Amino acid sequence: MNNFEFYSPTRILFGKGSMNKIHEHVPKIGKRVLLVYGKGSIKHNGIYDTVMRELSDCKVVELSGVEPNPKIESVKQGVKLCRKHQVEVVMAIGGGSSFDCAKAIAAATFYEGDAWDLVIGQAKVTKALPVVCVVTMSATGSEMNNVAVISNMKTHQKIGLHDDLLCPVLSILDPENLYSVPPMQTAAGTADILSHLWEQFFTNVEDAYVQDGLAIGAMKACIHYGPIAIHEPTNYSARANLMWAAPMALNGLLKTGYSMTWSCHGMEHVLSAYYDITHGVGLAILTPRWMRYVLDETTVSRFKKYGVEVWGLDASKDEFWIANKAIEKTENFLYKTLGLPSTLQEVGIDDSKLDEMADSCIRDKGGKIKGFKTLYKEDVLQIFKNSL
Amino acid sequence: MNNFEFYSPTRILFGKGSMNKIHEHVPKIGKRVLLVYGKGSIKHNGIYDTVMRELSDCKVVELSGVEPNPKIESVKQGVKLCRKHQVEVVMAIGGGSSFDCAKAIAAATFYEGDAWDLVIGQAKVTKALPVVCVVTMSATGSEMNNVAVISNMKTHQKIGLHDDLLCPVLSILDPENLYSVPPMQTAAGTADILSHLWEQFFTNVEDAYVQDGLAIGAMKACIHYGPIAIHEPTNYSARANLMWAAPMALNGLLKTGYSMTWSCHGMEHVLSAYYDITHGVGLAILTPRWMRYVLDETTVSRFKKYGVEVWGLDASKDEFWIANKAIEKTENFLYKTLGLPSTLQEVGIDDSKLDEMADSCIRDKGGKIKGFKTLYKEDVLQIFKNSL
Repeated sequence: MNNFEFYSPTRILFGKGSMNKIHEHVPKIGKRVLLVYGKGSIKHNGIYDTVMRELSDCKVVELSGVEPNPKIESVKQGVKLCRKHQVEVVMAIGGGSSFDCAKAIAAATFYEGDAWDLVIGQAKVTKALPVVCVVTMSATGSEMNNVAVISNMKTHQKIGLHDDLLCPVLSILDPENLYSVPPMQTAAGTADILSHLWEQFFTNVEDAYVQDGLAIGAMKACIHYGPIAIHEPTNYSARANLMWAAPMALNGLLKTGYSMTWSCHGMEHVLSAYYDITHGVGLAILTPRWMRYVLDETTVSRFKKYGVEVWGLDASKDEFWIANKAIEKTENFLYKTLGLPSTLQEVGIDDSKLDEMADSCIRDKGGKIKGFKTLYKEDVLQIFKNSL
Repeated sequence: MNNFEFYSPTRILFGKGSMNKIHEHVPKIGKRVLLVYGKGSIKHNGIYDTVMRELSDCKVVELSGVEPNPKIESVKQGVKLCRKHQVEVVMAIGGGSSFDCAKAIAAATFYEGDAWDLVIGQAKVTKALPVVCVVTMSATGSEMNNVAVISNMKTHQKIGLHDDLLCPVLSILDPENLYSVPPMQTAAGTADILSHLWEQFFTNVEDAYVQDGLAIGAMKACIHYGPIAIHEPTNYSARANLMWAAPMALNGLLKTGYSMTWSCHGMEHVLSAYYDITHGVGLAILTPRWMRYVLDETTVSRFKKYGVEVWGLDASKDEFWIANKAIEKTENFLYKTLGLPSTLQEVGIDDSKLDEMADSCIRDKGGKIKGFKTLYKEDVLQIFKNSL
């Protein structure tokens, strides 16, 4: 097991009715609130009204219209509002996009220079406003970690800013808030959670039993409950399992002891930065191709464990048979059961920029993506081509 | 899945060499340190010297001789030292006993009345000194939770004080610090961790997939690596797995969504309070008897899951066969593989106080232990008798 540091100070309120506790917690954190959210679907499903009622003792300023893959321009707009209104707490409603934007705002409010400096590491986070998250879309686990992924379409960059000061102080996870998430978004979110689990589970560290158990349990939760949530949007158990699997996949517990991989995220971030596609969809397209590409004598034992413990395959069979079968089951799950797009062309990506993207993908990483299997530019390009 | 609140703000430094980071962290938390530890085995294995070297910038006051099942008298002694020397941080070295004593000291330092009032809930914790734990014995997971179990031999009470202010701010988990733990203590610690997992896994909540995965992974870690740690005390993987399973079993992650049971702990705490036996040993004696006692039509599905996923039993067999076989495997593991005592008589407990203890066990709990199966006085008494 590798050395690690684990720190996850976010208080989680989970379950039916936890929205009604907001008024007990938030005013104690701060009474001048910046509310960050997306296109406004929360105004149709009652969540906005509930939050505003709970914040009746607070002064609320709003930043709405935060886009998927949140842009640095939205961060700058939020910073202006925080300074102008002396905001004390940034409260985001939504999923990873709103949360990441809120976190970057919380940190950039105390930085005098260009907020993008913080994202690219040219300046350090020294202080941040407290962040509160209300989850209405489960996928990234951002509600329980220290990461904010921000995009800059001008420079074609999508970069994760990591700092413990960005950890939300409080996150509200009420599974009933997911009831109105449409099937396609539920599918993409499930794929996103699974991707986080796969990226960490496929490691060369084989003696991390507790972490393996957590990863396997969370994968089974997604595989069992993902389709149920799509077909029965108000199934509480399904929504609750997905809602808890998301932060458990990405609050740092799984990287404890595992070696880091994140190969597919490295590749997908380039696709998103060039074409602005849905993160979970990009991951769903790339991951099975990546699995087939990296399967060999050195990696097969991990695929065997995946096939046996997650998909219930017969452990007495040949290990390559198990591995290939597990990858086939993964493809069927993503493209048939969840109904996600299976090729890059389906999401509007042709072969014209593959070479440029493969180059961009490894450029900032010392010429390669280290991990389960190290990938060089030609490997990334081949995986892109296999995904067309 | 049940509603829950989860909060675990302890920073964990895990792995080889993490002792060498103490000087980077502790002086920032506080420079006047109360060092809390047990009988002094840390002076023979080098751990005391390492800690003192790391604290060379601090003023250190010591409270040594903290006993297993820490007593309220030790807490009061620590409080006096904290007040006299204006201690800023309480640093405990050892296992649950030292940590629990340190936590109670940290809270009682700010309470003017009798420290026992805090334990029995007659006064509320309002403030506590920061606590740092250096783990040299893995079992209770106290290094990552908000609980301090304190005993009062005069009143025959062993009670858990719960408050978020008691969560350690920092815990150092270096698996090499476990190399000198003797086989019997390693066995008792492994049984203690398993007990925490069983107490939570055996729940009527069947839709908590992520929690199930974590519990199953941690059980497998104990079952695979417990015996290895006993026979090869310096096996790093074995020590690392046990060291991480302990806090993961009891940092609150498993109770998220599960209903609470803790039946065996309720019974064992009485045994300890009357006879001062080793906690893990008491649990190992009681648990299989409890399992057999509560196995019936309403609980068998959970035992089946336990048998199939933890012990690898054939899922196609009759569910009661699987359940009984799993309990048999549990007994063999505890009494043969780990070599723990299998009867109360072996630890000096005869039938003279069973009735009194059964009474004491349910008295503070409204006449029954609620849980997986509700236990009344006669049930507790029967389980005690079955354990003689």
